[in-house]
Amino acid sequence: MKRWLLSTFSAFVFSSVFVAHLYAQNPFDKTVRLAAHSEPAIPHPEQSKVAKDKLAALRAKTGRPPNILILLVDDMGWGDIGANGGGVVIGAPTPNIDKLAQDGLRLTSVYAQSTCTPSRAALMTGRFPVRTGLTRPLMAGEAFAANPWSDEDTTARLLSAAGYRTALAGKWHLGEAEGTRPHEVGYDEYLGILGVASEMTQAIDARIYPDLVLRPERREALRKLAIPEVTTGKKGSAAQTVKEIKTPEEMGTIDQMFADYSAGFIQKCASDRKPFYLIHAFSRVHNDNYPAPGYAGKSPAGFPYKDAVTEVDDIVGRLIRTLKETGQLDNTLVFFTSDNGANEDVWPDSGFQPWRGGKGTTWEGGVRVPGIAYWPGMIAPRPANDGLFDLMDLFNTSLALAGISDQISNKRYIDGIDQTGFLLADNGQSSRQAVFMYGDNRVVAMRWKEYKIHTSVYLTQQPMRNLDESVLTSTGDWPWVYNLYMDPKEQRSTGHRYFEWGLAAVKPILTSHVVTYIKYPRKSLGLETPR
Amino acid sequence: MKRWLLSTFSAFVFSSVFVAHLYAQNPFDKTVRLAAHSEPAIPHPEQSKVAKDKLAALRAKTGRPPNILILLVDDMGWGDIGANGGGVVIGAPTPNIDKLAQDGLRLTSVYAQSTCTPSRAALMTGRFPVRTGLTRPLMAGEAFAANPWSDEDTTARLLSAAGYRTALAGKWHLGEAEGTRPHEVGYDEYLGILGVASEMTQAIDARIYPDLVLRPERREALRKLAIPEVTTGKKGSAAQTVKEIKTPEEMGTIDQMFADYSAGFIQKCASDRKPFYLIHAFSRVHNDNYPAPGYAGKSPAGFPYKDAVTEVDDIVGRLIRTLKETGQLDNTLVFFTSDNGANEDVWPDSGFQPWRGGKGTTWEGGVRVPGIAYWPGMIAPRPANDGLFDLMDLFNTSLALAGISDQISNKRYIDGIDQTGFLLADNGQSSRQAVFMYGDNRVVAMRWKEYKIHTSVYLTQQPMRNLDESVLTSTGDWPWVYNLYMDPKEQRSTGHRYFEWGLAAVKPILTSHVVTYIKYPRKSLGLETPR
Repeated sequence: MKRWLLSTFSAFVFSSVFVAHLYAQNPFDKTVRLAAHSEPAIPHPEQSKVAKDKLAALRAKTGRPPNILILLVDDMGWGDIGANGGGVVIGAPTPNIDKLAQDGLRLTSVYAQSTCTPSRAALMTGRFPVRTGLTRPLMAGEAFAANPWSDEDTTARLLSAAGYRTALAGKWHLGEAEGTRPHEVGYDEYLGILGVASEMTQAIDARIYPDLVLRPERREALRKLAIPEVTTGKKGSAAQTVKEIKTPEEMGTIDQMFADYSAGFIQKCASDRKPFYLIHAFSRVHNDNYPAPGYAGKSPAGFPYKDAVTEVDDIVGRLIRTLKETGQLDNTLVFFTSDNGANEDVWPDSGFQPWRGGKGTTWEGGVRVPGIAYWPGMIAPRPANDGLFDLMDLFNTSLALAGISDQISNKRYIDGIDQTGFLLADNGQSSRQAVFMYGDNRVVAMRWKEYKIHTSVYLTQQPMRNLDESVLTSTGDWPWVYNLYMDPKEQRSTGHRYFEWGLAAVKPILTSHVVTYIKYPRKSLGLETPR
Repeated sequence: MKRWLLSTFSAFVFSSVFVAHLYAQNPFDKTVRLAAHSEPAIPHPEQSKVAKDKLAALRAKTGRPPNILILLVDDMGWGDIGANGGGVVIGAPTPNIDKLAQDGLRLTSVYAQSTCTPSRAALMTGRFPVRTGLTRPLMAGEAFAANPWSDEDTTARLLSAAGYRTALAGKWHLGEAEGTRPHEVGYDEYLGILGVASEMTQAIDARIYPDLVLRPERREALRKLAIPEVTTGKKGSAAQTVKEIKTPEEMGTIDQMFADYSAGFIQKCASDRKPFYLIHAFSRVHNDNYPAPGYAGKSPAGFPYKDAVTEVDDIVGRLIRTLKETGQLDNTLVFFTSDNGANEDVWPDSGFQPWRGGKGTTWEGGVRVPGIAYWPGMIAPRPANDGLFDLMDLFNTSLALAGISDQISNKRYIDGIDQTGFLLADNGQSSRQAVFMYGDNRVVAMRWKEYKIHTSVYLTQQPMRNLDESVLTSTGDWPWVYNLYMDPKEQRSTGHRYFEWGLAAVKPILTSHVVTYIKYPRKSLGLETPR
């Protein structure tokens, strides 16, 4: 273990392990760690009480715990939505999403992992990918050294056990093999795609991939790894193919299938008076986007990506209407977000963020994502809030809403934090002190207050903007520091000038994160990049 | 004249002059030119009628033409305000400005000239700087070869003649010499600074400018060019010193002085029942910013720039309240904007835009500015609109609101367009087809629909981000083209791939702009960069 630390963390971090006690009284650190397996959190007893009372009152009224609907877009940029300065400005208005922001709580510092699989795994387990082993995007047909889910609790698994109906619609990308699919790891049911959109389109679109699709032997080889199809499954039953996708036109229809499924699921749960947990995981706006019927050129920009944004916005509107029509609007936390930043590699089939970098990097462009919490009657329309929120917090927060926080096992370290008070109290503030950012199995950056500290920079993909950035894999002996209020685009590393004071504060915080791996060793599924 | 064209426009543009007739039927061009001296505009007869009827109804009610209040911030970035994705995200919430956007019309494609003097001159005359001769920022104490104002009409001059009370509060920067000051070129009165904030602070702040302030001979030399002071003047009277500014602390107070002045002016006009035209030209947020009393650290970011944003927002709130308290809210068009993009050169005393580049460049970061039109009862709360708007349009629009469009002389070419219908009709669309962007005396770029076409790139200042950009002064024989919906950060010039079709459309539009100089030759004040 020590060897792993030595080999993967910089001297800056490592040296801290041994001097952590010197900072036991770090005056900047206001967090409390309630148990060895819990992430330290900033206590806000008043807002916690407000949230608790609100939830109790609602439960007294409805007779059951609240529903949770997570709207998870794929690869959408922070700036794609109108509420964050995009929308009409960039040729694809998002009125339905913007309305959630206007009538709810827009969170401006929501962080995800920088790529799909790690981000989704973290969201569902409350644990960093380095703990579950799901540290990078899975490839078509890829098998694991061991089933990562056999010793993990997903939110869905715990909520199902507590009487919730749990479902996933759309993209999974967390295992295609038997025993790793949604209905086998906690979800009561699912309908969607087990891999990722681009794996499917590679097999069918000869205009983008002529070198593959027009070469029978290559095409057949790919097909042995993955068949482009929409599948469905129910707990305890085998998965079934719903539709094999054979053309780009058919590919254009899949998000409407997911929307039909989610709308039906909500209706069913409402009429059965059952609480539900639904992750609506869009396949959009991950490349390759093809317009759904009626959507070609529907956005002002007219490009497939933008038409896909328009479709996502329409589906958000439809699902909100479904909640309203079934009387569930006041009893459902809706959380809108994206799994990582827009992907600069696949332009023009990609989105917008005002930040530096994109998907696959630990620049803000890779990890800072849209975030809106919407819950009429429970979350008052509030000014946007810049408090830190990690998508892993949805694990703890969902369980808290359901009243089963006590079901979280103490066998595994949980990196998520219960943010119920932040979301539900009218002036709620974040309980999260810091966000840690990983590249592969290394912690390479962190956000603390308005500061971004890079100990090294992780790049899985070539940022189109500055090709020479790909060589910047280390910051050397001294971290790069950006003040994101003064320098939101991370253009000027000015740590020596403006942040020497802060290094003394963040070093023990980073150390206290790193040392959790001593008691809770990381898990390897063999996904690491060979070095 | 031909020689000038030859020497300053690229072959791409120049060749067009002689083939313009080939494009007389340009099917993409929907504009009509109503007179030789008028900029071609897209006719929208229905919305023009709506606007006219609305204005007539209001006038019947109030008995006088409406007031016009232009809130002109200095060097504020497009992204600084919350409504455009900044605000709380970057450590300085702007609730008062955001409320104007929410209750009015947020314009997302408002363009200015890339630096202070040219931008203000254009706004006040409706004419490109190359026509008035005011092509670059004036320097301390600088005199002109000839008084640029002697043969120009300002909005203020025409409105004064029509019975308006006209005033300018704050920054002028359009001439310090006798005969060139606000009360001498059309404004009934003014109170403000004739130059620019940084010229004043250079004379007093030894912490930023020790090499100047601590060297008596240099300091005295500068003082011979300009005395740091707030002055005031009334039409027909000599200017007077209100306060000499001797310390950074005193510098921090000036925007409150301007706010007091504007509030008083509004109150006076209201009680005298006189229509008014007021440009409230903040000295903020141009460097160097010092907090006003009570503002040090008031913004979450705490840096002087951000505290200045907070102060600007508070002053906006105060002036709106003054309008309300004096019963003028329904009878006043309020237009909020900035004179150019944030200045990357003076970080950390500078702002934010999601675009490429900053002040002094023709990247979007230099010329695209915040824009909000607010007028309760006359402008319905509307979704943000991406239609093109040039600050020069405020010239024509202001005169149209006052009902004196017929007072525009046909002796000078007017580049502004009447946008009354765009602003006042509930679904109003822009009448502007294109925005042209200048560097010095060259047209170097244009915006048309969602496209940005660079024939060359103008840089007066070093963009901090990519130092090598400073060498990019020409795009060669073929323009760079960016689709701003797909590539809002101007990262990928893809004209050959995506815009060959459009070059045939924009070439004649650019040509038709350029040939206006044949009938209306440009004016030179000797401000051009020696070459």
